[in-house]
Amino acid sequence: MTAQDLLDPSRKPCAAGIARAAAKITAILPPTPLLPLEVDGRILWCKAEMLQPIGAFKIRGAWHRLSDLTDKERARGVVGVSSGNHAQGVAWAARRLGVAATIVMPHNAPKAKIAATQALGADIILYQRPGEDRDAIAAELTARTGATLVHAFGDPWVIEGQGTLGLEAEAQVKARGIEGPLHIIACCGGGGLSAGLSLACPDALISIAEPEGWDDVIRSLDAGMIQPVADQNYPTPCDALQTPCTFPINFDILKGRVHSSAAVTPAEISAAMRLVFERLHLVVEPGGAAALAAVLTGKIEPQGTAVVTLSGGNVDWDIFAAMIA
Amino acid sequence: MTAQDLLDPSRKPCAAGIARAAAKITAILPPTPLLPLEVDGRILWCKAEMLQPIGAFKIRGAWHRLSDLTDKERARGVVGVSSGNHAQGVAWAARRLGVAATIVMPHNAPKAKIAATQALGADIILYQRPGEDRDAIAAELTARTGATLVHAFGDPWVIEGQGTLGLEAEAQVKARGIEGPLHIIACCGGGGLSAGLSLACPDALISIAEPEGWDDVIRSLDAGMIQPVADQNYPTPCDALQTPCTFPINFDILKGRVHSSAAVTPAEISAAMRLVFERLHLVVEPGGAAALAAVLTGKIEPQGTAVVTLSGGNVDWDIFAAMIA
Repeated sequence: MTAQDLLDPSRKPCAAGIARAAAKITAILPPTPLLPLEVDGRILWCKAEMLQPIGAFKIRGAWHRLSDLTDKERARGVVGVSSGNHAQGVAWAARRLGVAATIVMPHNAPKAKIAATQALGADIILYQRPGEDRDAIAAELTARTGATLVHAFGDPWVIEGQGTLGLEAEAQVKARGIEGPLHIIACCGGGGLSAGLSLACPDALISIAEPEGWDDVIRSLDAGMIQPVADQNYPTPCDALQTPCTFPINFDILKGRVHSSAAVTPAEISAAMRLVFERLHLVVEPGGAAALAAVLTGKIEPQGTAVVTLSGGNVDWDIFAAMIA
Repeated sequence: MTAQDLLDPSRKPCAAGIARAAAKITAILPPTPLLPLEVDGRILWCKAEMLQPIGAFKIRGAWHRLSDLTDKERARGVVGVSSGNHAQGVAWAARRLGVAATIVMPHNAPKAKIAATQALGADIILYQRPGEDRDAIAAELTARTGATLVHAFGDPWVIEGQGTLGLEAEAQVKARGIEGPLHIIACCGGGGLSAGLSLACPDALISIAEPEGWDDVIRSLDAGMIQPVADQNYPTPCDALQTPCTFPINFDILKGRVHSSAAVTPAEISAAMRLVFERLHLVVEPGGAAALAAVLTGKIEPQGTAVVTLSGGNVDWDIFAAMIA
């Protein structure tokens, strides 16, 4: 049994679900700023999701999922699998709802992410990455305890919740007096955010950026079928995007929907992080800077009104300093 | 003749002027986020002004002043005096209005601030700090060209403009469902922001934080009369707060109005900058972290609903890295 089997296969993410998620999320979380960044005479609208209470957009999907649990489900708790941003989202939502949360995290996750997840009151189970199968650990745990698995990307509620970022950005662009469809360039790990954006903003172009070596979604879309990452030992600073394989629920939405895509190198990500430091005065983690890196390098060419996700800011100081310097 | 003589002495900043400034500013600048930071079980509401287009709150006063210039005044241009944040505010507003701007900046201002001011199209005149009298240079310039001096803090429009930060924070706190008066803890250089906040939020407690060695406003308030900085060679990382002496227009408002105050050390400011990096994922410059440093050290004790100004984020990478490490 895999983690994926634990998801209800009859539940498909949809626009109505995203609208419901947006109503729940705007009730407790103010919109994150959409900040203009001028690059070569073009404005990139940067969605500053590191300013969410947990420092990443993952709070959206986690809140949508956990706030929909039945009383019986709440009593049995939740299990999350994450290198740290989804972990904090689940822990944050669980604490707010009084639900017990157990998070399966890689032993080499950023220290800041492990500490922040613990500070939110979650129990943490560390696994060896690479080496151990995190989904198998989560499946064993949920089978034994009856807890609900909240998958980081392959979950219909999570996809809907992440999609609310798109609705929020659309409204903010409109409030600036800018009309017409968006081109949303998103950082991509397992495809939860990009699938959500695809459903939330049907008129928008969607592009995705993955780290070099972890570009399984791009290769899957190119091949027309799901392809896992070839080498799980491939080094990357983008811990948040290190997903070995996307899920059918994500792939089926993204198939034929993604306008363009690019894999970016650590040096390209460093340059994007530095620009964000200098010009926007924000701390973006490596995985959260992939989309901007893809645009800055010209690997993804923005069309019309470009929205770029700066998806998280949970990065240890030593990593940040080494990448910016 | 000093720069101060160039200001219209009949013009006093007032609440009605702040309301007018707020209307002009909200029309073009979205509110900056007010972010909760939990410290020892208490929420500090941090006003993230580094997310303004120029990376600091100074855009408020500059826009209020320049947009009120007559056509004749616009044609003759403006002169600003600043280590960099007010400089960028004036340059930004001038570019938007098609007005020529000349900025008098210290030779040792942060490179990022000089570069950003130039990029906004302003002419820059560098002076030796310490050594040369910047106000005298500006006075000579305005006398010769007929340009309007936009002083960084001793100007009624500038004070009113900075005060809009307080109105914005009050509205944001209320939108969170929190009632009752605020305690605003502000970074203080010459007293433009704190004077504006004092007028904008008459029910709020106002506290000010200055850097060690540059605590002339605090000492002036203690003495009941304006006291200049004793040693203009005193080293400080807070270039934005290095004002040798406040002006009567600021002092008269602050006198008897400031609830508490503190001078903070470079080490205390470093700790505040690091906390902002880790928990809020924001880049705050040394001078913009003084208020938070004063609260974290317990030198200023927050009362009720505490709003802390994170007033700017324009800091060179080498300084930032050295202070955080």
